[in-house]
Formats: sequence, structure tokens, C-alpha cells
Amino acid sequence: MLETLKEQVFRANLDLVKHGLVIFTWGNVSAIDRASGLVVIKPSGVSYDDMKAEDMVVVDLDGKVVEGKLKPSSDTPTHVELYKAFPEIGGVVHTHSTYATAWSQAGIDLPNIGTTHADYFHDAIPCTADMTKEEVEGAYEKETGSVIIKRFEGINPVHTPGVLVKNHGPFSWGKNADDAVHNAVVMEQVAKMASIAYSVNPALTMNPLLVEKHFNRKHGPGAYYGQK
Amino acid sequence: MLETLKEQVFRANLDLVKHGLVIFTWGNVSAIDRASGLVVIKPSGVSYDDMKAEDMVVVDLDGKVVEGKLKPSSDTPTHVELYKAFPEIGGVVHTHSTYATAWSQAGIDLPNIGTTHADYFHDAIPCTADMTKEEVEGAYEKETGSVIIKRFEGINPVHTPGVLVKNHGPFSWGKNADDAVHNAVVMEQVAKMASIAYSVNPALTMNPLLVEKHFNRKHGPGAYYGQK
Amino acid sequence: MLETLKEQVFRANLDLVKHGLVIFTWGNVSAIDRASGLVVIKPSGVSYDDMKAEDMVVVDLDGKVVEGKLKPSSDTPTHVELYKAFPEIGGVVHTHSTYATAWSQAGIDLPNIGTTHADYFHDAIPCTADMTKEEVEGAYEKETGSVIIKRFEGINPVHTPGVLVKNHGPFSWGKNADDAVHNAVVMEQVAKMASIAYSVNPALTMNPLLVEKHFNRKHGPGAYYGQK
Amino acid sequence: MLETLKEQVFRANLDLVKHGLVIFTWGNVSAIDRASGLVVIKPSGVSYDDMKAEDMVVVDLDGKVVEGKLKPSSDTPTHVELYKAFPEIGGVVHTHSTYATAWSQAGIDLPNIGTTHADYFHDAIPCTADMTKEEVEGAYEKETGSVIIKRFEGINPVHTPGVLVKNHGPFSWGKNADDAVHNAVVMEQVAKMASIAYSVNPALTMNPLLVEKHFNRKHGPGAYYGQK
Repeated sequence: MLETLKEQVFRANLDLVKHGLVIFTWGNVSAIDRASGLVVIKPSGVSYDDMKAEDMVVVDLDGKVVEGKLKPSSDTPTHVELYKAFPEIGGVVHTHSTYATAWSQAGIDLPNIGTTHADYFHDAIPCTADMTKEEVEGAYEKETGSVIIKRFEGINPVHTPGVLVKNHGPFSWGKNADDAVHNAVVMEQVAKMASIAYSVNPALTMNPLLVEKHFNRKHGPGAYYGQK
Repeated sequence: MLETLKEQVFRANLDLVKHGLVIFTWGNVSAIDRASGLVVIKPSGVSYDDMKAEDMVVVDLDGKVVEGKLKPSSDTPTHVELYKAFPEIGGVVHTHSTYATAWSQAGIDLPNIGTTHADYFHDAIPCTADMTKEEVEGAYEKETGSVIIKRFEGINPVHTPGVLVKNHGPFSWGKNADDAVHNAVVMEQVAKMASIAYSVNPALTMNPLLVEKHFNRKHGPGAYYGQK
Repeated sequence: MLETLKEQVFRANLDLVKHGLVIFTWGNVSAIDRASGLVVIKPSGVSYDDMKAEDMVVVDLDGKVVEGKLKPSSDTPTHVELYKAFPEIGGVVHTHSTYATAWSQAGIDLPNIGTTHADYFHDAIPCTADMTKEEVEGAYEKETGSVIIKRFEGINPVHTPGVLVKNHGPFSWGKNADDAVHNAVVMEQVAKMASIAYSVNPALTMNPLLVEKHFNRKHGPGAYYGQK
Repeated sequence: MLETLKEQVFRANLDLVKHGLVIFTWGNVSAIDRASGLVVIKPSGVSYDDMKAEDMVVVDLDGKVVEGKLKPSSDTPTHVELYKAFPEIGGVVHTHSTYATAWSQAGIDLPNIGTTHADYFHDAIPCTADMTKEEVEGAYEKETGSVIIKRFEGINPVHTPGVLVKNHGPFSWGKNADDAVHNAVVMEQVAKMASIAYSVNPALTMNPLLVEKHFNRKHGPGAYYGQK
């Protein structure tokens, strides 16, 4: 079932390691097959060294396991919420990558202060609100999805394909698993560059004209970056 | 004698290198066989490249060598004190890993400001008090153990499996050698993320609800992380 | 056409990866054949893993493609402007390397505070002015070249072979592609050291005598560094 | 001539690369044969990839080349001054390693704030004074040695085997080439940890009792670290 997607999700999970975004088992990638509404996700707490493509777990949009011998990632309900709320996306990534997690712990939006950021994220990467007692003690991982979705009211998730969950870490997404991993790498890098930039000049400013130019150069209707 | 434990301790010492926690010989791992009360520990000042499993030294709970051609780590008396005071633990690690050591030099507790921390350490990772003249000029390494134990009055060492020895560096522990190494890696990573987070937002706050949730999700009676 | 130069430019692009200056496809190297006035440059958005020497694109000094199946780097017009304005240079590099980009985002000149800097760059590495609406919405990449050239009024581009484009990232140049890459590596390293140095001592000062001595030791008429 | 020493100096130079202390050719190691008063040193500006043991250059204590087809390191006169002033030392290292160089640029002493530092350096690692016009425009590299020696009036160079040359970078030394490299690695690491520690707690303090204890544990007459 969904063997090609399992292979893609498996490879994308290994790419997190290759890009230095995960320690131990602290990360997970999923992808959705929109035709069937089924999500393929990494199993929970399995070492990347031992993991095989066939270990990927298939769940439905209620988060119920449809196929797989192993338990899915404990963050599965968050992934599922994002797929339901953001119909344009095909892949989701969660990591505890160093700098993006540090910004999540800092609890503030990661501002768009350079063209590297603007090439991928139109606006600041938003940080979610504090979770309430009901949210944390209830269906916590599902509610983590809800606080992300609430934070994106008025924000286009395709133009800002990532979020900082306060005191926790980053989630990113994209049109498929690879694209979501790509955005996770970008988030980590822009979080690192921003922490250095503010340490050098806390009063720095961004030219808003560059945001429009760079985002549209890669993503707008007249995009001309790459071989397209 | 204790060949399996020697092999485990040897491999765990090499894992410190693999995880980037040690330079030269600046780290040591031990494990205890609770049945016999014997501790297996790395020899002092031996290069990781040359070290073999049979070089591991066996000492008793008075720190006396029971088997081994080499001198045990100079930190052996600290390890022994921890095994005597914390009966639940089976492995101990000491390193001079960069960020955890920097926090030890900073001389303050490493606060719990994110779920990465809360997944492993219930509370702040405490920093010990200044050692007195009697402690430093007496049985120094044994007294290092004593100041750690004193600092843990009222703290559960299983829920907070690590400490910052002031002006020195981190010690961590766990149910065996591997688990203690795992916690050493986590300490280094949360120390790094905290130093970045505070540089970005010195006024950051932690949601205490997340501490309970994440710690219990992995360690409480209803733990549901991983394949258990 | 220009096979040797293509090979040099190809190798220099791979060197950016080797020196850790690029993630994904975020960098480009070009070189000029001054006899023909033709520029060889990396294609746009092609993975470094898949790239071959014959993929390099040849453009003229109007930025028009003269040979090549692929589209040239989107930054080609910036490279071309620099070759036209700075007749002494033979190679140009653009990256989003971490620390040099962070300084670009900080929006301030990178001061000459050490002999590592003075060995390669006589003065501060200047940061360009904010680009205007006309510049950004017009021929943006060409205008990026223009703001660099404007910033170099009164500065010798051979003695200061690099620039920080505000809110964007570094460009460097040199007598050929290798030399431009070399200067890109130096810029990243001095940007890193400066950010650390200022965090340690915001009131630091530079001895101006060392600037003259070190720059001239390597570049002046009586240069005596190396095997020359 | 001095083939064994050449091999040692050659290997020690490669160790600088292995330990991540040098970029390009920015580092040099020498060692002295006290019997003959001859110094073996790395050639100037030669790539580490191409270098062979027989490329090492032999100079006398006037800095004159006695054997070797290549020019010696441009820093040779500094090395020679140190060998003349500090008769106990057998090897000298100079690098532009990231954190130690940043502290040199910061222009302040690197304080002893932890046992990692105290294990190798009894006191703060001193930073030299600004060089005068006469020193910089005269025999600059020889005078660099002189300002180091001046800074060590009242400091035991064996107990504090390294220095920060202001606005330049670190020099270290030891009983032979390997030992000097070892101390260069330690300087870089303690410089890194100190920059992090001060960013976390600018008001940190060091327990002076630990300085005596740790230094003497490794270097005093009753030293008991390692297998000695």
C-alpha cells in the first residue's frame, strides 16, 4: 500500500539526518496521498540507522493506523490536523533543529530580515501562542495542530510554509515530503543567520521591497529562478 | 570479569567521541554491576584511538581497583559517590562538552525552557555550589561527588539525570552506560539551544504545563512515546 | 568554447560546497575571458551533485547567452556589471554563507579588526545602501551590481575584494574564479571571528599600523609571504 | 638533517588541520633541536595537501635558513625569539583558529574560568600590548616575539603555554611540537567555552581553589592524572 510514498517518506526522514537537523529520533516526516486521504509517517522512536521504508506507518485523517506493524510518530495527530486545515500541502516535517528550536524557546516570531528568508517565506515565521491547560491536558498533539492553525488565520500557509511552536520547536510543510524537508533546512539556516545578525546589530532593518522581489522571483506568476 | 559490562562501557566511551562530546581524553563513562557492587570505568588519560574493551578498570564501591592493569579515571571517586547515593542509576558520564561546560563556568542552573529539555529532565539542570577549601584540598574527586549529592537534596536524580559542577563541567547518569551517554548528548544540546534562545530573547518564559506533559509523555506511568 | 575556463568555473563552484559556503544551490561562481569579453557562469538552480563542467553557461557582457543549454544563474547581470566596472578582476562569487550573510542582514560594514582580515582586505568590507523602488522593481540583478559599484566609489576593488549587499549576502571577486572563492572563504571566516570578538568586547579597537603591515606583506610591492 | 624532527613537525602541522584549527595555510608549527640549536619549521604559504616531510625548513637561532629548498614560514622570526627567551620549550604553534583569534581581536586576556583551562594554563592567557610604529615598521615578526616576551615578564611560560597577540591571533608552545599543538587545541576550546559562558552570565566568577587543584593535579610534583 502506497509503496512509492513510503519510499519517499523514508528517504525524506533520512535527509533530516543528512542535513544535520536531528539527533537520535527527534524528527519526523510525513506525506499525504490526497486521492485516498491516507498519510504515510515515520514510526515513533525508531533509530534512523535501523529504519526501513516498509516501517513507515499509514494512517487515515482521523489518525487511525490503517497499515503498519509499528506505532506511528507521537506527533501524528499534529500532522493530520495540518493536512486537514491546509489542503494545498503534501508533506509535513517536525524537528528539534538547534536554531529553529532556540527561536521557538525564545517565543517570538522569526522576522524576515534577508533575501534568504524572502526566497522561501513571504513573512515572518510565526510563533504560536502559549497552549492552555485544556489544550495541554486534552488531546495534546491534536491541539498542537490547532494552535498552529489558529496562528495562521490571515496567513497563507503556502507562502509561509513553517511555524515555531512556542517552547517546543519548528514544523514546516510543502507540496511533498522533499519540499517540506527543504523548508525545514531553510528555517534552521535563517534562524541561525538571524540570531547572528541581531547579535551584531540589534537595530537592524529590512527593506520591504526585497521581500516582494525575492519571494515573487521564485514563487510569483513571473518566477524566473531555476531552470523553469 | 564483567566482560559484557566492560564491552558496554568501552562502546559507550567511544560513543562520546562519535557524538562530538570529547576532545583528547576529556571524558569518561562507567557502569555498575549492582549484584556485585563493582564499577567498570575508563582508564585515566588513555587515547580513545588506542583503547580496548579489556583496558576498562574494575573498582569496588570504595574506589579500590579490583581488576585492571591501568589506573582508573581520576574522576572515579566522583562516579562511586554517585552510585552509592543514587541506587536507581546504572551508568555515569562526565565530559567537558562545549556548551554544558560553558554553562558550568557560567555557574547558574540550566533552566527548563523547552520540550526538548522536558522530554528528559523534569526540572532545571542544577549547578552545584562553590567547593570549600576543605573539599578542594581534601579528597577532591570524592568531595565533587558530595557537592553533587548535596545539591540534589529534594531533587529526584532519576527525573533530573544530570548536573553542572560549577566552574568544571557536566555529569550525567542513567539506568546504564548507554542511557547516561544519551543524557550527556541531551544536556549538551539543551545547553546550546538555551544559550541561543536567551541571546535572542533574554525575557523568554516557559509554559509549566508543557514540562509536565512532555516529561510524563516519555517517563510517566502512562508514557506513550516510542514503541513501548 | 572556453573549455578550460568552464572546467575552472565548475571546479570553483564545487569548492564552495567543500568549504561549507553553500546549502542547496545558493551560490554561484563565474569567470571572464578578457580577450573575448565572454563570461562563464553556473546554471541557475542546478544541484551541485548533478552539475557537470559542460553545464556551465557562456554569456556576453550584455548578459546574453552565447552558448549553453541551461539558463545562467539569475545573478548573472550582477556578475556582468562587476566585470564591466572592475576591469582588473577575473572571477566573481556570490554565496549566502552563514556569517557573511548575517552581517549583510545586520546592514553594517564589516570592520577590519584583525590581521586575518588585513591579510586580504585593506579596509572594512563595505555594506551597500538600501535599494530604491526603481532599482528593485527595475532590472533588479543589474541594479544590484550598480549599488555595489556606487558603494565602491573611492575604494579600490582589488584591495577590498568583497562587499556585503544589504539584507542579501556577500559578493567577492579576485583575479580568477579560484581567487574569488578564496576571498569568499576569508569573508565568511572574518565575519565569524568579528561577530565573536564583538560579543566578547564591544569596545575593541584595531591597531591601524597592522592593517598597512599585513596588507602590504601579502600584496604590496615588497610582498614576502608565500614562496614568491 | 634532523629527519626525525622534520617528520614530527610535518605530522604536527597536519594535526592542525585534523583539529580544525587552520584554513588554507594559516598556521605553522616548529620544533627545536636544543643540542644543535636548529629549528625545523613549515615552509611559507604551501598547501597542506601538497606538503611533504622533506619540505620542512631548517633555520638557526638567527632565523637564517640552514637547509631547505623552500622559504620558511613568514612567522619564523617570532618562533625563534620564543625559543631564545623560553629555554624550557621545544615546540611552537601559530594559528588563526576561530575563537582564540576572536579573543585576540577583542584585545583582552582570556580569563581562567574553568577546570578545562586550569588543567593546562595556570593563569589567564595574556593578550599582548599594542605594537608601536617602530615595532611594526621594523623587524615586525621578530618584534612580535618581543612583545610576547615582554608580556610574559613575571609569568612562567611553562605554566601558561600560550598567548593572544592583540588584533592578530594565538601562539602556543610546549615541550615538543605535539605538545604545542595540544595546547593550541586547548586554547581554541577554552576560548570558545569562555565566549559562551560570558554570553550566558557576564558576572560569572571562578573559584581560585580549583585553579591550584586542577593545575597541580596534572602538572605539580604530586600529579596523578593519566597513567604516570
